[in-house]
Amino acid sequence: MNRSNVRSIEGSITHATVAASAPSATTGSSDFLQLRIEDAPAGGRSVWLARELRCAIADGRLPVGSRLPATRVLAADLRVSRGVITEAYRRLTEDGQLAGRGRGGTVVVAAPVTTAAKGAASTPYAHRTAAPCAPPSAAAPAPPSAAAPAPPSAAPPAAPFAAPPGPEIFDELRAAPARIDLSPGVPDLSAFPRTAWLRAERSVLAGLASTELGYGDPRGTPALRLAVANWLARNRGIRADPDEVLIVAGTAQALGLIAQVLHHDGIPEIAVEDPGSLGARQHLRHWQLATPPVPVDDDGIRVDALRSCGARAVLLTPAHQFPTGVVLGGGRRRELMRWAADGGLIVEDDYDAEHRYDRAPVPALRSLLPGQVCYAGSVSKLLAPAVRVGWLLPPPKYRKALVDAKRFADLGNAALPQLVLARLMESGELERGLRLLRRRHRRRRDAMIAAIRDRLPDATVHGAAAGLHLTVTFGPDGYRGSDTDLAAAVLARGVKVQPLSWHSQRPSPPGLVLGYAARTPDEITEGVAVVGKVLSSG
Amino acid sequence: MNRSNVRSIEGSITHATVAASAPSATTGSSDFLQLRIEDAPAGGRSVWLARELRCAIADGRLPVGSRLPATRVLAADLRVSRGVITEAYRRLTEDGQLAGRGRGGTVVVAAPVTTAAKGAASTPYAHRTAAPCAPPSAAAPAPPSAAAPAPPSAAPPAAPFAAPPGPEIFDELRAAPARIDLSPGVPDLSAFPRTAWLRAERSVLAGLASTELGYGDPRGTPALRLAVANWLARNRGIRADPDEVLIVAGTAQALGLIAQVLHHDGIPEIAVEDPGSLGARQHLRHWQLATPPVPVDDDGIRVDALRSCGARAVLLTPAHQFPTGVVLGGGRRRELMRWAADGGLIVEDDYDAEHRYDRAPVPALRSLLPGQVCYAGSVSKLLAPAVRVGWLLPPPKYRKALVDAKRFADLGNAALPQLVLARLMESGELERGLRLLRRRHRRRRDAMIAAIRDRLPDATVHGAAAGLHLTVTFGPDGYRGSDTDLAAAVLARGVKVQPLSWHSQRPSPPGLVLGYAARTPDEITEGVAVVGKVLSSG
Repeated sequence: MNRSNVRSIEGSITHATVAASAPSATTGSSDFLQLRIEDAPAGGRSVWLARELRCAIADGRLPVGSRLPATRVLAADLRVSRGVITEAYRRLTEDGQLAGRGRGGTVVVAAPVTTAAKGAASTPYAHRTAAPCAPPSAAAPAPPSAAAPAPPSAAPPAAPFAAPPGPEIFDELRAAPARIDLSPGVPDLSAFPRTAWLRAERSVLAGLASTELGYGDPRGTPALRLAVANWLARNRGIRADPDEVLIVAGTAQALGLIAQVLHHDGIPEIAVEDPGSLGARQHLRHWQLATPPVPVDDDGIRVDALRSCGARAVLLTPAHQFPTGVVLGGGRRRELMRWAADGGLIVEDDYDAEHRYDRAPVPALRSLLPGQVCYAGSVSKLLAPAVRVGWLLPPPKYRKALVDAKRFADLGNAALPQLVLARLMESGELERGLRLLRRRHRRRRDAMIAAIRDRLPDATVHGAAAGLHLTVTFGPDGYRGSDTDLAAAVLARGVKVQPLSWHSQRPSPPGLVLGYAARTPDEITEGVAVVGKVLSSG
Repeated sequence: MNRSNVRSIEGSITHATVAASAPSATTGSSDFLQLRIEDAPAGGRSVWLARELRCAIADGRLPVGSRLPATRVLAADLRVSRGVITEAYRRLTEDGQLAGRGRGGTVVVAAPVTTAAKGAASTPYAHRTAAPCAPPSAAAPAPPSAAAPAPPSAAPPAAPFAAPPGPEIFDELRAAPARIDLSPGVPDLSAFPRTAWLRAERSVLAGLASTELGYGDPRGTPALRLAVANWLARNRGIRADPDEVLIVAGTAQALGLIAQVLHHDGIPEIAVEDPGSLGARQHLRHWQLATPPVPVDDDGIRVDALRSCGARAVLLTPAHQFPTGVVLGGGRRRELMRWAADGGLIVEDDYDAEHRYDRAPVPALRSLLPGQVCYAGSVSKLLAPAVRVGWLLPPPKYRKALVDAKRFADLGNAALPQLVLARLMESGELERGLRLLRRRHRRRRDAMIAAIRDRLPDATVHGAAAGLHLTVTFGPDGYRGSDTDLAAAVLARGVKVQPLSWHSQRPSPPGLVLGYAARTPDEITEGVAVVGKVLSSG
């Protein structure tokens, strides 16, 4: 396999962007952005300046790569103390939009993908990065950089991509017609073991006591809780008593139950990886938890940033970060364990840990610190999302509250599918199926990487060592438009992909999240070719 | 069938009690309860007097059947205006504890079952009927009435009955060992159509598109939504478009989703029938809706009381009120429709409408006023609770909010059981099974009535014309103890029943809710005999 274009196979998006942005000439300071200090409220000048800078970055007046005036110069121009400028720069640096370059000065390193696509109204944290900007006057749109292809102009954004993603976004995306669906998050559904499932169901129905068809234990059937405990011991290095296992209706429900319990415990927010799953964030926010973003780099979540953000809980995908594919590094794991030992709660979403190709399995965090980790898994990526079965291993302090939350959610999962699944797990059929699936997924992954090498030569591939999807990003020399526009143009040509910006709260380079597991190599090749065509026709 | 003891087959508990309570001699007024008007706060004398009377009724100083002093006499004694007395009596009359008897004066007709079992702490509305009573002095416990058997003394209250029912109560009851389980709410589970289910599942798996195993429509699969719409048209006289149908994980989830949506819409409470399902009330309260009680009489819910309680929403079981079995009368239906047309929202829990024996089916309220009725049904009583499938027909104004609530609950029900159920509904197999089930349930119902006639001659049977259970109440001459103590003593002899007081927020006569559908006639006969033995050994 030619990996010349597969940069830092588990590589971080944040770092890639920073490294790729070479500073250009310093922006002149004398009429810098036509700032009028008279507009600033007394006592809030840093906040005002930071806001003005964000707007200028968002609307293109300060393109990525431009260098800002030195703090001393701008302070003199605006007739404010130098501290005002330093503080404003510091805020945007923390946001990831500016970076200090030593003698190179302060440089714009990232822009929000589109202001419209990340509107503050629906996303409590969006103001940190992309507050709505009042245009300073009837400002003309910034000309696209000559170095990079312009955004595709042929296709106006189609339905799922025209507006910031709302609660129905995944329904809308699912409903959008397409020849080839490269949405991430779904395994090869044609491999669902229909015969084994039916055989197990027959056996379950033959041996079932009538009382098992009545109202049951809200925690799940004893048979499945035992089977899950055994599965986790065999596949994830987790030792758990079946009594600790709580059966839920998939990870979506798990996140809702956890959010309810945390909220009730006085915890108003749960930090999330950035980029990180839009769906998970929507669920947490629906259940009234704020989701402050913590950057992810080559080693996974930045634990220093987690610590300084002050959240008491964090949602992580340590085995295969969604969407970047980064594996949490050893040093970070140790740092994270220290953070948790100090009282932090880790929600470990082990969403596709069983799908790995080029590396050894990563042990679950749960096995290291059971008292501070709430572990969540499901069969959505092992079998099919439509089975709607998952499991939680709550830390002891939240066990009772989570059982109550499950009881009052739905009195517990349906019994028959639990019992069927327990048989498939205990008989080894699920593991056999998974081995087949892994080989098939690997071939599809290889097909996608080959197609990207051929058709998207400027793209950087992330997270190819495991999982069901890849992420590709485009540096400033590769593509300068918004990835929602790109996804819309690709959909207009019959191929469904997700823009990376959906999954980012902070500015991210344009990118696409491309699922390969559910598609044949031919479909994958054709789908990637369509992306390439759209890019080159831009 | 001898129906001599089956009084008012759909008879109301409130009325039955009233009729059974023959007034005894008027309580002397000169030192009536040793009331000290000096203890009353200025301006709150009626409230104070009502409270004193409640305490006296609760602790036995004013037993059921005693007549209160005339308002004129007591007013003179206490040196307060007659209006103070009239108002206090009115309050307790509305609570169902007193009744005016014309020339017979004002009589105590019901007492809270036990103060401990209805403690105010866990039940927001309990203070309306049974505020904790400070004993007036070191008062000796009231001697049991000589006319009625004393509570069973042999058995101390066992686990599920020792304390007011908490969130785990039904788990505890389920876990309690018993030879014969007469808990209500479960159909004959041995009749579950295992063969038909497996056949339908095979057919579903054979014809399934792989995409149907992915993430689906949170409203449910189109096939089941169509099948439910057809089912409701055939069996419940409801015309609904499949697009209006929302598939949920049983009525428990339906109540949770509705509660979330109402709460979000600024509706803080939903009135409930009293007596009415404890489980339903627990779910609504968990989701932060208060549940003010509205009395039920021979014609169903008292719409005048509903109107005066001021709640903007009400949960009803109009086809077969739980637990009394009353059918909502024609006049009440019209009154209720006027209330709803004025803006009230009805949540219609049609929990066992398909199980009727001696009467024609009652049309659903939903068919009368679709814009103001949120209809809820499930297969829990048609097939088995463990299937965890139900449906909602939301009124248009809440449709989107309920779909969102379902999405963020669990992304929608599992696909396979939905598709199997759709086949069973569309093929006519579910209806065939229901006809068999109805015949079997009827035989079991008759066996229970016969056993009650033989073994519980003093009990009054309620709600025998339909459903899966009966309620029996004991007049003051039949049994004077608490029904939780009775249920505990019965459980100690191996038979599981539910005390009526679990389902009552306001005072109710002691009673038991006895499920017959899931047990054989022999088990039923033996179970009722055990109740009779406990009563006669008291």
